[in-house]
Amino acid sequence: MFKNAATDISTIGTEKRLLEAAGEIFAEYGYRAATVRQICERAAANIAAVNYHFGDKEGLYMAVLRAVHNAHVEKYPPTLGLPAGATPEQRLRAYIRSLLYRIFDEGRPGWHTKIMAREMMEPTRALDMLVEEGARPLHQDLASIVRDLLGSKATDEAVRLCTLSILGQGVYYRRARPVISRLYPQQKYGPKEIEGMAEHITQFSLLALKGLAKKVESRGFRRCQNANQQQRGKYL
Amino acid sequence: MFKNAATDISTIGTEKRLLEAAGEIFAEYGYRAATVRQICERAAANIAAVNYHFGDKEGLYMAVLRAVHNAHVEKYPPTLGLPAGATPEQRLRAYIRSLLYRIFDEGRPGWHTKIMAREMMEPTRALDMLVEEGARPLHQDLASIVRDLLGSKATDEAVRLCTLSILGQGVYYRRARPVISRLYPQQKYGPKEIEGMAEHITQFSLLALKGLAKKVESRGFRRCQNANQQQRGKYL
Repeated sequence: MFKNAATDISTIGTEKRLLEAAGEIFAEYGYRAATVRQICERAAANIAAVNYHFGDKEGLYMAVLRAVHNAHVEKYPPTLGLPAGATPEQRLRAYIRSLLYRIFDEGRPGWHTKIMAREMMEPTRALDMLVEEGARPLHQDLASIVRDLLGSKATDEAVRLCTLSILGQGVYYRRARPVISRLYPQQKYGPKEIEGMAEHITQFSLLALKGLAKKVESRGFRRCQNANQQQRGKYL
Repeated sequence: MFKNAATDISTIGTEKRLLEAAGEIFAEYGYRAATVRQICERAAANIAAVNYHFGDKEGLYMAVLRAVHNAHVEKYPPTLGLPAGATPEQRLRAYIRSLLYRIFDEGRPGWHTKIMAREMMEPTRALDMLVEEGARPLHQDLASIVRDLLGSKATDEAVRLCTLSILGQGVYYRRARPVISRLYPQQKYGPKEIEGMAEHITQFSLLALKGLAKKVESRGFRRCQNANQQQRGKYL
């Protein structure tokens, strides 16, 4: 949707122009400081068009965030390249690959990353919508893979903690990229490197999940989670 | 250093007042938009004091970031609660606990988190300093623990990827907290919960590292990292 910012404005619709301009302005100034006037000027549209298409500033902002999210998930769905009748291991690999491809998408305009970082830094009411429509289904997809790998005896807490451990490994590359690229300047982010990172996170997570599944089977995961110092000695 | 923002300004030194005021202003407006005048007004100091203590605006900003970093690492060093002659497993647990205690530090003023988030969103030259003085030693500490657990045959790439996998699991709670708290409103962040999360990340990572160490021992990790589809089938 936002691939070609250089497209002559006369050839794309007002609604799309407003979304693109609003995305840039909101990313640059933040939701509160940005004005509808600025956005209309950049989009060569009038305020009535904002009201018509989006209701108000908040509606426009919500539409921008929704469009950013959808554009990436449609391009790289969590079932990326998954064969029919896939195993939980294959579903986990597909999930992690799609996550990394979304993170390292070179076609992603800079403002996509920035507007999301702003929303995390200073959440608005739009975050509730983004979580319910965007993050929750993605978390549930991964949680169901984790559940299959941990086994039916695993507690909900164990499934949640493992789901977050897997997501954290991937998302870290997005958030900490300025640090990682300074620490390891030799690291590249082409398709080969992304596949290597996805393979690493998949292996790392599968080894952990399979090890935990054995513990769940034999001793119960909750006791393991609540282990005190003495108990720890037994597990390690 | 920044524990008591309510302290009467007359009782603390100009340098500390400037650091505190600068931190708040830089977090609120960003490095570029913030002005030394605003900072001096909030700190009840004059511009000559900024020049005397910090040189210029950039020097003041660097000092703020350095103070934020040092305050947290001094409070929760990566060797938190480590016994003498500790094993690599114990060092890993201490590292992860200290990371989570830094992340969930209730005494951390809101602007500490915000100024760091801004720096990641729009890095300035200060990030180079922060990485060299702050992030690199912390990464190296963890990398040496990972190296001990993976064994001497592991490649540098394997050590780096595992180090990032461990850090990512912890740091995710800082960056994604607004999302996590919406997805799982039942999750609390008291000392008991932090210990539980640290224990989970420790177990998850140790199982992964020990599994990888076995692969390194038997087949070489690099081949495993570069595995193509056919090879993958053998590992999973």
